[in-house]
Amino acid sequence: MRLSIDKEQFLKALNTASKAIASKSADPLLANLKLDLNEKGLEVTGTNKEITIQCLVPYRIGDKEIIRSAGLGAALINAKLLTEVVRRMGGTELSLEVIDDSIAKIDDGRSSSFKLNCVRAEAFTDIDLEPSGVILTLPCAEFAELVDQSAFAASTKEQRPVLTALNLEAGDGVLVATATDSARLARKSIPVDSDVRFRCNVPARTLSDVTHLFEGAERVTIAVSDASILFLFENTIVCSRLISGEYPVTKAIIPQTFNYYLEVNAQELLAAMSRASLLSAERDYVVKLSMNEEEVQVSARSEQTGSALESIQTFQFTGERLEVSFNSVFVVDAIKALKSEDVRICFQAEMKPFVVLDPKDDSVIQLITPMRTY
Amino acid sequence: MRLSIDKEQFLKALNTASKAIASKSADPLLANLKLDLNEKGLEVTGTNKEITIQCLVPYRIGDKEIIRSAGLGAALINAKLLTEVVRRMGGTELSLEVIDDSIAKIDDGRSSSFKLNCVRAEAFTDIDLEPSGVILTLPCAEFAELVDQSAFAASTKEQRPVLTALNLEAGDGVLVATATDSARLARKSIPVDSDVRFRCNVPARTLSDVTHLFEGAERVTIAVSDASILFLFENTIVCSRLISGEYPVTKAIIPQTFNYYLEVNAQELLAAMSRASLLSAERDYVVKLSMNEEEVQVSARSEQTGSALESIQTFQFTGERLEVSFNSVFVVDAIKALKSEDVRICFQAEMKPFVVLDPKDDSVIQLITPMRTY
Repeated sequence: MRLSIDKEQFLKALNTASKAIASKSADPLLANLKLDLNEKGLEVTGTNKEITIQCLVPYRIGDKEIIRSAGLGAALINAKLLTEVVRRMGGTELSLEVIDDSIAKIDDGRSSSFKLNCVRAEAFTDIDLEPSGVILTLPCAEFAELVDQSAFAASTKEQRPVLTALNLEAGDGVLVATATDSARLARKSIPVDSDVRFRCNVPARTLSDVTHLFEGAERVTIAVSDASILFLFENTIVCSRLISGEYPVTKAIIPQTFNYYLEVNAQELLAAMSRASLLSAERDYVVKLSMNEEEVQVSARSEQTGSALESIQTFQFTGERLEVSFNSVFVVDAIKALKSEDVRICFQAEMKPFVVLDPKDDSVIQLITPMRTY
Repeated sequence: MRLSIDKEQFLKALNTASKAIASKSADPLLANLKLDLNEKGLEVTGTNKEITIQCLVPYRIGDKEIIRSAGLGAALINAKLLTEVVRRMGGTELSLEVIDDSIAKIDDGRSSSFKLNCVRAEAFTDIDLEPSGVILTLPCAEFAELVDQSAFAASTKEQRPVLTALNLEAGDGVLVATATDSARLARKSIPVDSDVRFRCNVPARTLSDVTHLFEGAERVTIAVSDASILFLFENTIVCSRLISGEYPVTKAIIPQTFNYYLEVNAQELLAAMSRASLLSAERDYVVKLSMNEEEVQVSARSEQTGSALESIQTFQFTGERLEVSFNSVFVVDAIKALKSEDVRICFQAEMKPFVVLDPKDDSVIQLITPMRTY
């Protein structure tokens, strides 16, 4: 492999593919990026076996020559070292040459010359990045919103692996994303073509990583097969394993009828809860919402620290007097995910799950289980 | 104690005094700030026994009323909780009332009302903040530069406590600051009144903390007594314990004559060393400087990662051919502390300590011990 390459485009690909590299791995080979110069361009691939990211640096972008090749080939080079070396090098064009499959020589053509130890490309397990199975294409912004409004509610604990996933279910023209850690649930729907039909469990953290890579990309193609899911956008391919196991049936647990409705400015409620919950940090940030038609208050209390009382100024409450206590982190997460000016909270009873909604958008629903009052 | 207070000034004092609070302390009382409303204003004091910071919020600043008092008094309130509550409260004025020496009621006069548990002020060990001993006054900017250019070279290891100090020595119209971790040394001098004479060892980290608090302050008054040093600026007093023990005599180890001189652009040398040292991260970031009158190169090498070679473009070297290896972190720190466009490095021999200087400023000197070449 021998080439000269535009530094900026090279660094961008290194940074993106490096996002798949684990900071520590039992397999030292996985600390490497695979660089493969072929007829398409320079493919830069990183993997941690859970997730694989491949970026293609093409020979040309528009009129601009990005790569001049003097010999195809491939090699594995330490991801962190290569990225740092390239990042700190001066100039706009670098030359890269792999010698004897063991040394990668990088040169800025001026004052810096590096020889990095490298490994034969064949040592890397090949990961299949060809799209297969069910294939659909969506606007990146829509898919990113689907993930943003739901994935945060997935569990971060590994006891029940399936709950660390975002459950994706497509059929009848709708793609529904569901995440739950069993104390809360978030669900978001977006329209898709009516012939698209699949079910899968994707690691929730992976999906957040994927949507952060979208940047300026317009559309993402998603390919769902039995054991993996592929995301293709611009010059990037991300492959993630799926989580096996049946996702819990959650449809029945979302209540349909309510006895109490609170409508309130999102920012005011967030500020009141974030202040009050300072007093209950050691008790899961539990706060109590006390509501009647005249008055809505947020309160918190602890033996150790003291007590807080917040009066909400602008609200509309429908129903009898009600007090509900909950982990305020869950409600804060839910309200932030809605990104709406006002929120509607619908209650059945003091100890029954309640839902947090954007009154102007019925595609997303946040469900939260209350906690016992102190 | 009962008062209303300008929120912004109150928060500023809480933030400053909180810098003395340790994140974890064996003595739970030290997690508190002492609030003392007396005839001068509201004194906010935090301490970790090593360092004490007191901020005074005065009754008036210019024409503006900052505090309205309805009763003097004092109390201890948890620093982190109080600061966070005040920070997140709305409005511009807060009211604070201590009830029965056990509850501090904080109110924004609109919607938020907090009751924080508190402790009698008498539980706090009183720390003497009255200036005594040798007293001098300096421009803040000058003292901050003295600390910036020297304190970084102090040891961070506790084996020899006296080496964690910045040694201050005043006499004959000069204040000299010296720090050394025994592999490197930094020394900076500034002029002072000729009758000022003292010697003391101040924890180096404390001094960096102090200079970061200067902000807009013009002049700092320093009072050095037997066991402590006081810094007074604007409405703030910082008291630090001194480190006992004799500071090593360092004057003799700074060489006066040299055989080789390298003059080079600071940014170019920094960039070359920071790139090359990527290759020797696991070997103390050691790099080698190879110099003759035609060529100056920075190189690094490791079995594990590979090798780097950097050519310096703009330089002037006087002397025979010379190769010197060193921990590049030390040289990077030294060059950054000089803050000069060009640096002069003066060598005696391959394995003798060398000095890094600003050719235009002889008030500061950086001494570094080389390492054995690979």
